[in-house]
Order: sequence, then C-alpha cells, then structure tokens
Amino acid sequence: MLSKKINFKNKYAKFTKHWSPRIIAEMNDYQFKLAKIKGEFIWHNHTHTDETFIVLDGNMTLKFRDGEVNLSKGEMYVVPKGVDHKPVAFNECKILVIEPKGVINTGDAGGDLTIDKELWV
Amino acid sequence: MLSKKINFKNKYAKFTKHWSPRIIAEMNDYQFKLAKIKGEFIWHNHTHTDETFIVLDGNMTLKFRDGEVNLSKGEMYVVPKGVDHKPVAFNECKILVIEPKGVINTGDAGGDLTIDKELWV
Repeated sequence: MLSKKINFKNKYAKFTKHWSPRIIAEMNDYQFKLAKIKGEFIWHNHTHTDETFIVLDGNMTLKFRDGEVNLSKGEMYVVPKGVDHKPVAFNECKILVIEPKGVINTGDAGGDLTIDKELWV
Repeated sequence: MLSKKINFKNKYAKFTKHWSPRIIAEMNDYQFKLAKIKGEFIWHNHTHTDETFIVLDGNMTLKFRDGEVNLSKGEMYVVPKGVDHKPVAFNECKILVIEPKGVINTGDAGGDLTIDKELWV
C-alpha cells in the first residue's frame, strides 16, 4: 500500500495563481490544500466546519470582526466554524489549508473568487 | 472569537520526550499533535482511520510491509487506514500528526509505548 509522498515545494512549483487552493491529499473525508495568497481575500465564514491555516512560507493576517492574528512561517490557526474571517497577505504567502472535503473557499459569501470545483495539483 | 495562534517552535520547546505526541489544536473532531521521534517505533495500524504525517524538521522513514518512504522537512504522507506502518528516525525528527480525536499512537498493537491519555502542550 505504497503511495507517493507529497513534497510541498514541488507542488507549489506547479501553480502560480493566488487565492486558488490546490488539493494535494485526502485523509478520510478531509482535504489538504496548498494555496498562494497575496492581497486581500473577502470576508466569509464556514457555517458547518472549522478551518485550519498553516503558514509554510511568508506572513499573513487573519482578520476577524473583533481583531486580527498575524501568522508567520511555522505558525497555525484554527478558525472556528461560523466565525467571519478575511485572510490578507501583503506579500505572497504560502499556506496549507486543512478542512473537510467539499468546503468552498468563499464559504457563505460566494462571489468572483469562489472556486467551486476540485483543483488537484 | 479570537483565540491564540500556535507556534510550532514554542510548542516544541515545552517537551523533550520522544514518541510522546502532544496535542496542540483541535479542528472539529480532529486533533493536531506535535511529536519528537528518534529511533524505532513499533509496527501498528489504525483500523478505522487514515493518519497524516508532516515533517517539520529532520528526516524520518515510514516503513510498510511492502516498502518504505523517506520523508524530509516539507514533506507529508497520509497512511491509509488499516495499513501496517512503523515510523523510524535515525536522528531526532519533528513531526506534525493529524488524525481524529481518540486515536491511540500504537493503534492495534498496544504495548509500553502506548499513550492512552490526552497530553496537551
């Protein structure tokens, strides 16, 4: 039962688009997604699930209605379900997002930045 | 709804024991655990769940009955449920393990290395 290991750097080399998470693995009914982010995302929340952010390179900020959290390489944050958040990155930041299969990046908000199909890399 | 970010380095500074995973966060009914590993663990499997290994520092090997996978910093592997595996690290290696709450480190095998209580750090 030998499948392939996943190398983050190799996976990141395969896409450039910002705010466009790429699935790299599944664990039970959860998915691991790599993303490159830069600039401001939109306010949104995920009604039914927590969402985990791990910063693999660079710096980002998670804005909340009542404050914000700055995350650097080697740091993680679990956004509780239903909590409005807005990811922001001044310079390009590389993150690993972990959440259940089927979660849409823009959550309840929808809009142009919505990725509603499964993009693997 | 502002909770604390998690810094891997700060968390690792709080324990030294090998093969003794420490919970750092929960996402829904899943847990994130940091571990320091060195030497050979035992053969075991987890009947009901996949298990994710992410190497944060150092190198490790996941041995399987039909081969092995070497993992370095920045690499991850999802061990499918029910698959026998044996983690090994020649030098100390720092890993992040992600799996459902309640999973026991020695799986079906039991024995002296079993951690059967929740250790947070």
